[in-house]
Amino acid sequence: MEHPEQEKIPYSLNSRKVAEATREWLHKRGVTILEIAELVMMLQKKYYPGLTMEECIDNVEKVLRKREVQNAVLTGIQLDLLAEQGQLISPLQEMIENDEGLYGVDEILAFSIVNVYGSIGFTNYGYVDKLKPGVLERLNDKSLGPVHTFLDDIVGAIASAASSRIAHRKQSELEEALGEKPVSDDIV
Amino acid sequence: MEHPEQEKIPYSLNSRKVAEATREWLHKRGVTILEIAELVMMLQKKYYPGLTMEECIDNVEKVLRKREVQNAVLTGIQLDLLAEQGQLISPLQEMIENDEGLYGVDEILAFSIVNVYGSIGFTNYGYVDKLKPGVLERLNDKSLGPVHTFLDDIVGAIASAASSRIAHRKQSELEEALGEKPVSDDIV
Amino acid sequence: MEHPEQEKIPYSLNSRKVAEATREWLHKRGVTILEIAELVMMLQKKYYPGLTMEECIDNVEKVLRKREVQNAVLTGIQLDLLAEQGQLISPLQEMIENDEGLYGVDEILAFSIVNVYGSIGFTNYGYVDKLKPGVLERLNDKSLGPVHTFLDDIVGAIASAASSRIAHRKQSELEEALGEKPVSDDIV
Amino acid sequence: MEHPEQEKIPYSLNSRKVAEATREWLHKRGVTILEIAELVMMLQKKYYPGLTMEECIDNVEKVLRKREVQNAVLTGIQLDLLAEQGQLISPLQEMIENDEGLYGVDEILAFSIVNVYGSIGFTNYGYVDKLKPGVLERLNDKSLGPVHTFLDDIVGAIASAASSRIAHRKQSELEEALGEKPVSDDIV
Repeated sequence: MEHPEQEKIPYSLNSRKVAEATREWLHKRGVTILEIAELVMMLQKKYYPGLTMEECIDNVEKVLRKREVQNAVLTGIQLDLLAEQGQLISPLQEMIENDEGLYGVDEILAFSIVNVYGSIGFTNYGYVDKLKPGVLERLNDKSLGPVHTFLDDIVGAIASAASSRIAHRKQSELEEALGEKPVSDDIV
Repeated sequence: MEHPEQEKIPYSLNSRKVAEATREWLHKRGVTILEIAELVMMLQKKYYPGLTMEECIDNVEKVLRKREVQNAVLTGIQLDLLAEQGQLISPLQEMIENDEGLYGVDEILAFSIVNVYGSIGFTNYGYVDKLKPGVLERLNDKSLGPVHTFLDDIVGAIASAASSRIAHRKQSELEEALGEKPVSDDIV
Repeated sequence: MEHPEQEKIPYSLNSRKVAEATREWLHKRGVTILEIAELVMMLQKKYYPGLTMEECIDNVEKVLRKREVQNAVLTGIQLDLLAEQGQLISPLQEMIENDEGLYGVDEILAFSIVNVYGSIGFTNYGYVDKLKPGVLERLNDKSLGPVHTFLDDIVGAIASAASSRIAHRKQSELEEALGEKPVSDDIV
Repeated sequence: MEHPEQEKIPYSLNSRKVAEATREWLHKRGVTILEIAELVMMLQKKYYPGLTMEECIDNVEKVLRKREVQNAVLTGIQLDLLAEQGQLISPLQEMIENDEGLYGVDEILAFSIVNVYGSIGFTNYGYVDKLKPGVLERLNDKSLGPVHTFLDDIVGAIASAASSRIAHRKQSELEEALGEKPVSDDIV
């Protein structure tokens, strides 16, 4: 009987609602855009010394506007939430609740985010996912209560995707500075 | 309060339970090994005229013994179940319930199954997922009630993985028949 | 003998050259944008009856502006060319020359193209790669001389990526027509 | 000059030749099984203190018996070789020769190796590919002459795949020690 309104109004995707839900749920699960941007800065400052936090934030925002990314974020957070509430079927419940090492669906979802910005982000993703810097350390701390089996990988993936986006952008800027006309819409 | 027993016994994965839950849930959701094997036969009989249903069944069974496959099956069925019960957060609920065209997490999970048997299965997967033969037609029929947004893709992926497994096996058999010593554990 | 000019000028990527080489090589290998657009039309007309060839062409052009796509196209055509000239190491030479069924690097490269537009393109890719309609039939004809082991998969992938791009665009147009404000840069 | 002998003998894949060529070419390009096993030990000793070098070597050997892995290794080394000899088309030549940051086909090939052992290897791959420990540091040293744009990623991927294989095996051993009957052929 849930969603009686849907029985009346035919389904039609509203992309703005998906985008807004993504941002809201990241916020509800305690992750800020700023924290993700800090991961990006950590990953990219070595290559682009002049990189600003403003640019990092802007790139994270752009990544979050992609539907493919939103789908992964919402699905991952959903599974975390249900595991937290003990509502999954066994043994999926135990595997997600305990961040089972041989359960890799969290990595698979995270990877779908990285893929949208191409293969150059694979390395950054694995690196942050292993070292768990900044916000990832907190998300990965099993003693704190909430289940973030999916969210820590997803946040690392968003940071990696934003890093890939920056790499493409910086190349365009460089070419422009050299008087060339780069292919402007390589990555958006 | 959920799962009080887990608060006492420390978590330890039991791989047999994961394997059994996978088979049980496929059964509960109305999919038989035979139906998946029929998809395999449809995909492969053209290449191996002597292929038997017994071989198809055996290959499907082998695919289902892989942990990576079990994780994808359980996670996908779980999301279908929750969508059926209206228990997902909005707009994820609406997207999965309506098999939204721009929601591709079902394809992502399915693809993780195909990947375990290598890249040669990509084509078979897309083909059956588009044409929806046999059991896939029933799973994909939105008028029947149950939500199978994930399951239809997953079943197609299992059939594709089993087809890849057969292709590797048949090459080994051919080389043996030619008196050569093939690399015996190429794919298991 | 190798590129003496590079020993003087330090390497700097010129994205326009990469984009132009991609188009030139597709042309040299006998593939036109129009033929790829025809594949797109074949895949999408069922869903969007009003879709024009102009739109299909435009979407193929946009896909070809992506660096990730260009890299895959150039690498795949390069391997086809070398196989045609018999210049690869054995047994890679024989595997690519004969489009060996257990060699899936062509599918892997093709898939990197599809991935840039998200998971919804997986199905279209497998479908055209299996059925080989239009230009793919010619590319896949082993009797004609040139080796197109990579190119046929790559062309199918470009068509699938353009189809995914159209699906995202059409959703935006629909939402605009309904008076909503879609997230404008979902996919570029 | 193109392989006149092939016009007489019909093509038939010999899987043993593919396996042997893979080992020979790794050797010719200066990579030993021992060096790859050392990467595995570095990645896994934290989780399995009793892990021996013998086990690491054995797991690397098993990974190298997979056809999907052999295809990626041979294709990657081939592209390195041709770039070293200046025989690729421009600008692919310059991109591979200079290990261009926006060229990710090396990561794509490497990833196809990791995928065969499932998603749990994604993280290890990115980690070693970023830190370049052991043999990867030498392979990645651009001042030494040979082009290893593909090989360094491929070696990291083999080590990650072997690490995933170990994780699956160790779980089986643990369950056996607990008196259970694990699913024996989860990963081979």
